[in-house]
Amino acid sequence: MKGDPHDASARVRLAHGAGGPAMRALIESVFLDGVTDPEARALGDAAVLPLGDRFLVLSTDAHVVMPPFFPGGDIGRLSVSGVVNDLAMAGCCDVLGLTSSVIVEEGFPIESLRRIHRSMQIACAEANTRIVSGDTKVMQKGEVDGVVLSTSGVGITDRVVRDSGLLPGDIVIATGTLGDHGLAVLSARHALGLEGELRSDVAPLNGLVRAVLASAGSKLHAMKDPTRGGVTSALTEMAQKASISIVIDEAALPLSAAARAAAELLGIDPLSVANEGKALLGVEASAAPEVLRALHAHPLGVHAACIARVTEGEPGAVWLDTGFGTRRLIERDDLPLPRIC
Amino acid sequence: MKGDPHDASARVRLAHGAGGPAMRALIESVFLDGVTDPEARALGDAAVLPLGDRFLVLSTDAHVVMPPFFPGGDIGRLSVSGVVNDLAMAGCCDVLGLTSSVIVEEGFPIESLRRIHRSMQIACAEANTRIVSGDTKVMQKGEVDGVVLSTSGVGITDRVVRDSGLLPGDIVIATGTLGDHGLAVLSARHALGLEGELRSDVAPLNGLVRAVLASAGSKLHAMKDPTRGGVTSALTEMAQKASISIVIDEAALPLSAAARAAAELLGIDPLSVANEGKALLGVEASAAPEVLRALHAHPLGVHAACIARVTEGEPGAVWLDTGFGTRRLIERDDLPLPRIC
Repeated sequence: MKGDPHDASARVRLAHGAGGPAMRALIESVFLDGVTDPEARALGDAAVLPLGDRFLVLSTDAHVVMPPFFPGGDIGRLSVSGVVNDLAMAGCCDVLGLTSSVIVEEGFPIESLRRIHRSMQIACAEANTRIVSGDTKVMQKGEVDGVVLSTSGVGITDRVVRDSGLLPGDIVIATGTLGDHGLAVLSARHALGLEGELRSDVAPLNGLVRAVLASAGSKLHAMKDPTRGGVTSALTEMAQKASISIVIDEAALPLSAAARAAAELLGIDPLSVANEGKALLGVEASAAPEVLRALHAHPLGVHAACIARVTEGEPGAVWLDTGFGTRRLIERDDLPLPRIC
Repeated sequence: MKGDPHDASARVRLAHGAGGPAMRALIESVFLDGVTDPEARALGDAAVLPLGDRFLVLSTDAHVVMPPFFPGGDIGRLSVSGVVNDLAMAGCCDVLGLTSSVIVEEGFPIESLRRIHRSMQIACAEANTRIVSGDTKVMQKGEVDGVVLSTSGVGITDRVVRDSGLLPGDIVIATGTLGDHGLAVLSARHALGLEGELRSDVAPLNGLVRAVLASAGSKLHAMKDPTRGGVTSALTEMAQKASISIVIDEAALPLSAAARAAAELLGIDPLSVANEGKALLGVEASAAPEVLRALHAHPLGVHAACIARVTEGEPGAVWLDTGFGTRRLIERDDLPLPRIC
């Protein structure tokens, strides 16, 4: 079978980049082949390395979004936010520095590069960090489409939060409306004309996470940002890693009217598309009200809501409670939405 | 003028990626625009951040080499070595961990990805480090040519070496033969049939640098690896940053017969093409013999030689002493050799 990464004649498919089961299979079969290192095998969005009595947190993200400028942001803001958020999700809010690799096509407008650079600087200022080193490669016309950024970051933290720490009884909080980034990019790409209302949520979340950590303390059990593959993919991974079950309350999902409209027009589940300025927080039920209050007091958390609860149930299963006593099992798919981030 | 990056209609040219003056102009005009941070403005190949009484060293490199498999190595070995060497050149030989972003074209053979991964693992073992986090993006057929890797690394060191520390009277040592990587890649690309003898030198140098640091102590004043732009570009940058002059002794340059032959066939100066397993060391003259002995005792340093001396002369100038009392000024050019690394 062409799709099986163990087949010697297999080739990379778009699904391998979709953040779902195919990507997981590719990573397991290729990039973890022969790797025994537990930190690499943990497949966290950031790696955590002990450093004396603290932890060094390290992450990388490539961005290939098309178009590179979209309502609410651009590839530069995305690249800084993506890495800062990977670190923040590990509990690391102090980002010491970022590195930036730029791979650009011959003929790309230099003014656009400058716009991207300025946007990165603004996002760095919001995240209280800076780009300390970089690399630039130029490929010939037609060898790369526009611009690709690869950004890495490093930070230090006293406390590490993992995406695997959910416990039965926990509440899952979404820090705001869902699906905005992916739907805004797709709307812009297909010129749906929804740009006025529908904007990417792309933003660095380390400030918000700092407020959550202060409010929840040890009652914050897990965090993950629902980027590629969206909420569905993030919650499935959290459920699998913690061997618990998650029940989403459909009626509680924060979705903007514009996102609902775009999702309907595009025929896409808003839970399956990328967010770039949102986090899913697993907290002890007793802490949920205070965490919600802390979120609502932060500019990036005003639409935060409790969206799911964690149960013992079937390990790894994610259910959607549609109300009226009905629920259906949600499965990660390999929906190929290339260049959404 | 189309080439001036300040011109609003200017576009990226291949020369902007060649490691010469055009790249420098692009970086100054775009990526350092509005940046006051001294570490970013230092334009070192790695960034150095104080961490208590030690230093965190951070670097990133993107690799787009074509073909991805070449005599002596491949893009995977190149990506690991590139980052490890950036850290080593800053004096940091303990590499805590690497991150790896893979951007791959739909249809790329998975078996080739696996080969690249294995090669990265071998290079990591040689450098006594590991890949701790990664990211995979798939672009549609025709949107990226093959595979692009972007690798970052972080390490900790007690002592920092800069590429700006040359002093008049210093000797510049090359740790081995020059030009092999760039000439091997170009020979493979143009099927010159020199593959038997001409092989890339790509290798992680942190072990070699550790031996140099032990031997030279504080008499090691500066290091730089002559990657893109080759020896010419690296020495020019070192001369400019230290405001000194460098005189290369042409007769002393370690060049293999195969590299000489390939350079002649291709019409390329072997001093202008990338090395990926060599360093240029600026040491106090009194330490040169002992450093040479230490290098010759290491498998990656057997062809090490003193190739130049540092003088007060014209700040930033690099001269080639061709013997018989004649010398000529060497200038960095913008020779566009795309996808050499």
